[in-house]
Amino acid sequence: MTATPAPRRLLTIVLAAGEGTRMRSDLPKVLHKAAGRSLVGHVLATALVAGSDALAVVVGPGREDVAAEVAALAPEARVFVQTERLGTAHAVLAAREALAGGFDDVLVVYGDTPLVRPDTLSRLRAPLARGAGVVVLGFEAGDPTGYGRLISQGTSLVAIREEKDASDEERAIKLSNAGLMAISGAHAIALLEGVGNANAKGEFYLTDVVERAVLAGLAVAAEAAPEAEVQGVNDRAQLAAVEVELQRRLRAAALKEGATLIAPETVFFSHDTKLGRDVTVEPNVVFGPGVVVEDGAVIHAFSHLEGAHVGRGVSVGPFARLRPGAKLGAKARVGNFVEVKNAAVGEGAKLNHLTYVGDAEVGPRANLGAGTITCNYDGVSKFRTAIGADAFVGSNSTLVAPVTIGEGAYVGAGSVIVQDVPADALAIGRGLQVTKEGRAAKLRAMQKALKDRRG
Amino acid sequence: MTATPAPRRLLTIVLAAGEGTRMRSDLPKVLHKAAGRSLVGHVLATALVAGSDALAVVVGPGREDVAAEVAALAPEARVFVQTERLGTAHAVLAAREALAGGFDDVLVVYGDTPLVRPDTLSRLRAPLARGAGVVVLGFEAGDPTGYGRLISQGTSLVAIREEKDASDEERAIKLSNAGLMAISGAHAIALLEGVGNANAKGEFYLTDVVERAVLAGLAVAAEAAPEAEVQGVNDRAQLAAVEVELQRRLRAAALKEGATLIAPETVFFSHDTKLGRDVTVEPNVVFGPGVVVEDGAVIHAFSHLEGAHVGRGVSVGPFARLRPGAKLGAKARVGNFVEVKNAAVGEGAKLNHLTYVGDAEVGPRANLGAGTITCNYDGVSKFRTAIGADAFVGSNSTLVAPVTIGEGAYVGAGSVIVQDVPADALAIGRGLQVTKEGRAAKLRAMQKALKDRRG
Amino acid sequence: MTATPAPRRLLTIVLAAGEGTRMRSDLPKVLHKAAGRSLVGHVLATALVAGSDALAVVVGPGREDVAAEVAALAPEARVFVQTERLGTAHAVLAAREALAGGFDDVLVVYGDTPLVRPDTLSRLRAPLARGAGVVVLGFEAGDPTGYGRLISQGTSLVAIREEKDASDEERAIKLSNAGLMAISGAHAIALLEGVGNANAKGEFYLTDVVERAVLAGLAVAAEAAPEAEVQGVNDRAQLAAVEVELQRRLRAAALKEGATLIAPETVFFSHDTKLGRDVTVEPNVVFGPGVVVEDGAVIHAFSHLEGAHVGRGVSVGPFARLRPGAKLGAKARVGNFVEVKNAAVGEGAKLNHLTYVGDAEVGPRANLGAGTITCNYDGVSKFRTAIGADAFVGSNSTLVAPVTIGEGAYVGAGSVIVQDVPADALAIGRGLQVTKEGRAAKLRAMQKALKDRRG
Repeated sequence: MTATPAPRRLLTIVLAAGEGTRMRSDLPKVLHKAAGRSLVGHVLATALVAGSDALAVVVGPGREDVAAEVAALAPEARVFVQTERLGTAHAVLAAREALAGGFDDVLVVYGDTPLVRPDTLSRLRAPLARGAGVVVLGFEAGDPTGYGRLISQGTSLVAIREEKDASDEERAIKLSNAGLMAISGAHAIALLEGVGNANAKGEFYLTDVVERAVLAGLAVAAEAAPEAEVQGVNDRAQLAAVEVELQRRLRAAALKEGATLIAPETVFFSHDTKLGRDVTVEPNVVFGPGVVVEDGAVIHAFSHLEGAHVGRGVSVGPFARLRPGAKLGAKARVGNFVEVKNAAVGEGAKLNHLTYVGDAEVGPRANLGAGTITCNYDGVSKFRTAIGADAFVGSNSTLVAPVTIGEGAYVGAGSVIVQDVPADALAIGRGLQVTKEGRAAKLRAMQKALKDRRG
Repeated sequence: MTATPAPRRLLTIVLAAGEGTRMRSDLPKVLHKAAGRSLVGHVLATALVAGSDALAVVVGPGREDVAAEVAALAPEARVFVQTERLGTAHAVLAAREALAGGFDDVLVVYGDTPLVRPDTLSRLRAPLARGAGVVVLGFEAGDPTGYGRLISQGTSLVAIREEKDASDEERAIKLSNAGLMAISGAHAIALLEGVGNANAKGEFYLTDVVERAVLAGLAVAAEAAPEAEVQGVNDRAQLAAVEVELQRRLRAAALKEGATLIAPETVFFSHDTKLGRDVTVEPNVVFGPGVVVEDGAVIHAFSHLEGAHVGRGVSVGPFARLRPGAKLGAKARVGNFVEVKNAAVGEGAKLNHLTYVGDAEVGPRANLGAGTITCNYDGVSKFRTAIGADAFVGSNSTLVAPVTIGEGAYVGAGSVIVQDVPADALAIGRGLQVTKEGRAAKLRAMQKALKDRRG
Repeated sequence: MTATPAPRRLLTIVLAAGEGTRMRSDLPKVLHKAAGRSLVGHVLATALVAGSDALAVVVGPGREDVAAEVAALAPEARVFVQTERLGTAHAVLAAREALAGGFDDVLVVYGDTPLVRPDTLSRLRAPLARGAGVVVLGFEAGDPTGYGRLISQGTSLVAIREEKDASDEERAIKLSNAGLMAISGAHAIALLEGVGNANAKGEFYLTDVVERAVLAGLAVAAEAAPEAEVQGVNDRAQLAAVEVELQRRLRAAALKEGATLIAPETVFFSHDTKLGRDVTVEPNVVFGPGVVVEDGAVIHAFSHLEGAHVGRGVSVGPFARLRPGAKLGAKARVGNFVEVKNAAVGEGAKLNHLTYVGDAEVGPRANLGAGTITCNYDGVSKFRTAIGADAFVGSNSTLVAPVTIGEGAYVGAGSVIVQDVPADALAIGRGLQVTKEGRAAKLRAMQKALKDRRG
């Protein structure tokens, strides 16, 4: 019988100081988004799921925007600035204060490599617990040209050989360096400080840690990940490729959980979309962040949802837009060309066509006719509209907030409602119809004459 | 010279009693839809096209919903309940009364395998006419692992060998059992009753009919189908894969018939969509069931059509929704953010923007301005709107049904029309404009003060 | 030191007389569109980029529509009619007058083969400058079955061998005839006239020019192009395949220039779409011809743009439609279910929901509430609406053109505005609200009674 070992404390260092020139963007590379979350956000989330006890993020000089994103997503992370770009080993040492924190294991990951799975990080780290000093993540490259090859002897990694330095035999090796690394916390600073810059670019390379470890007599190992996990983002095409892989994962997970996606390849999820059982999603639906869809709801084609909660059995779309704060009660219906924002819609309520409901409460079973619009903004402030249970708002009505339509009240079609309507009252606010017999023909003649005169 | 043989009478038995646990759904598996039709609906339609004289569907206990779907789609079909799930041979015998009906040929097909083509069923059945007792449908499996292999000698099938019982040589065979079978009607009951359940699960397997037939000295044959035809649906990912194959077929057929699909992979058809010659469909269009589009019509991007008839040369969309009962006359135009439901729109009429037309007739050449809305529902009943030929309805008008706008009549913009407008009359129903000079600035000041006070 | 040779004058002949029967269309094949431009339009554009000094287009008899398209896109091109369809060499000779124009180089290209790149044409032509009499374009066919094979000796092309005449050895050759050809201008007429029609169909084949040239002692060469470039359009499926390749190129170019396409495969470009740096395009966006999007703009999902100019940092959609003449100033916002046509929208102006703005100017920072509609058409003529800077138009308002809303003016929600509103004035035009307590319940009772009576 063996005692359970004390859990090993893990520091994950995220390198996020790359310039990303090939993105041709004013936005730093790691702030570009995939599946509704920044690249660095994906990496931070993975590091946390993999059990990191502490996070350190190394950013380039003047990158307050990256620091702010890190602070927003992982307030516990410490941000370090790499003041000069002198190579990856130098970047890791920018987090020296974190490295000195007495961690057992140190993982070095990259802010522009968002597809690595938590399990892979755990596997990468595992040999440290068995005494390894360094573990390098490799991948079987479909075409290894240009990558450093992982040269092993038995179970030991003996070198990472750059393409240009490799023998023909070594070039035939497909296991290539992914860049991620696990380092024994006890040795990390010494190993990193041992790295020199006697190379063409005069940079301090993290890969050289392997050689330092071998010289120091430490065991060095390699772990392998699928190539798809370790693809990085250096340009917009690679960003799109990362999106493809994330969407593939999210779609497969939704199908597995019991949602019907009629055409999965046309549904775009956010990293955090939650779909219940027997939810149906028609083709061409886009989910922004923060959407929850409960069991049995149907999201029809051409719908766009963000920050919305969709209750059980609700019908959304086609052509519906749910914006942040939209909350739809069970069996509510939001139909075509309808926008809902910051509004709670009660059970069984109907907003079927050409409607804007913003900053509002709509009671259970209330029915808003086609073209109903809540006027929530007066040019300066936003105001709320309250519509009671079982109220009926006639088509093309304008509800000028702040205003309350009472329970069971009835608003005549085409009304502009500027005062509260009590429960069970009828309100009408529209011009009287005047009909002039035979006048249309004269009007047309006049219009034509006018047109002719204008030439 | 030979006499024409009497046509052979065909019974097709559809097994639809599977539980479909891996679907993770409250809906029975065979009622899930692909290309706008339930899986069992596809199978029934194929069986009918293949010349079935009678249909029998075997459902699980308490599956009134499946029975109802069968009754709706193929009223001539008899439904049998398999009260206990004791294997596929047992399921077929649930239809014993049908089997006893003196049919020449019996086909056994599966409610969750909707891609088999009618021609394939005809080929499967053909050897019976040449004296075979049983014919098994096989397919060349890309990866046969896990499938039963079809073991032949010359033209005879001698066994279906389960993976676990197969020799290395047999495992190398790629022709695998698809499950579908044709059985001589004269021998079917005897063969099925001969099947035993002396196996690990204690079930009566349909595949054992092959052994029974061989023992009875009957000829047994195999026919092959493409793997894509025999894929079944056991989970949502497979349901999506079936949808992919159905859409592939429907798109190819539409292109062949002379429609332009700018991006075929973004157009989703229903099983029954009919497109005329020189129809153009832009990217991202969804067809629900029951749509007919006549020659030369253009369906612009982001349109959603269901149960609609689109006349010659009509323009639909972008962003249009046609719902059941929409019938558009030649050269009519239905533009962006327009919904048409249960309404006949005359030749050359225009509904160009932000309009809802429901329960209505719109005459030829009538023009409905942007934002026109028919108010067809008063909270209790639906009423109709009639708009005459050449009528002009000004923008943002509200037509409160029941109401008639006469031929050539003119409705002023922003009117609420509650009374009939005679032919050639002009009707206006709106408030008078009041303009207060310099008041906007004061209003804004007031709004801001109010906002500040609220804090 | 060598003198710069005089530039060689190039005539490009576009063969566009094919009937295109397999298109099953009333439209001639070369007028079908891909990426928003006719097939012949693509070919003409390529010919011009490749440096053609003159263009000749050979059309079938009675094809004024093709001639008109050519005249519209390349007014400098001469159009020749091939009165009888007697083969490709005969078609080229229909342009005899052009051939007699003393050109150094003649390129023969096809109106239904739109993917050939300008560089390829330049390579095809290059050997002429080195003394070749004829150059044939070949491609490495994935499956060469059915294609004529290019038979070479050393650097010389000795024959184009039809499949049926080929030896086994020749059939193994994959370099196949693409049909495009460069011919020395000095020899072109003589070579073409030398072609006979002693073949099964009695047609004059352009390929026979190779044999004529060899007999005349002229050097004959072959150049190769990728197979994807030389695919032609004979049916709608091939038209769709050409669209796929054009979109692939356009998407790759946009990504390279620094645009983010979240899902490139769902964005459909026109041949002339221009996207600035750091433009983001969400999934499912369709660009018609004539769109320019400036730096930093975001085109949200489900948007449709055509002939529109989108300024820096503008936000468009989701569900927006920009039609020709829409011009959006920097940081303007055009939101969901909004259509803009022939209208200039000022910097920072907001058209956020359910709005139609046509034939209008909207001033900087003006705000149009949900449901605002400009009534630009009276059934006969179109009129303009002018909305001043900082104006605020309340929701569901109707602006009846011609009308001017002055700077800083305020329009109350639900108003119909028929007279100009001075700067800083407040205008309201709507019915007064009348509220009747307790009346809704009575109304509902009445409605129900009515319904019951109607049965």
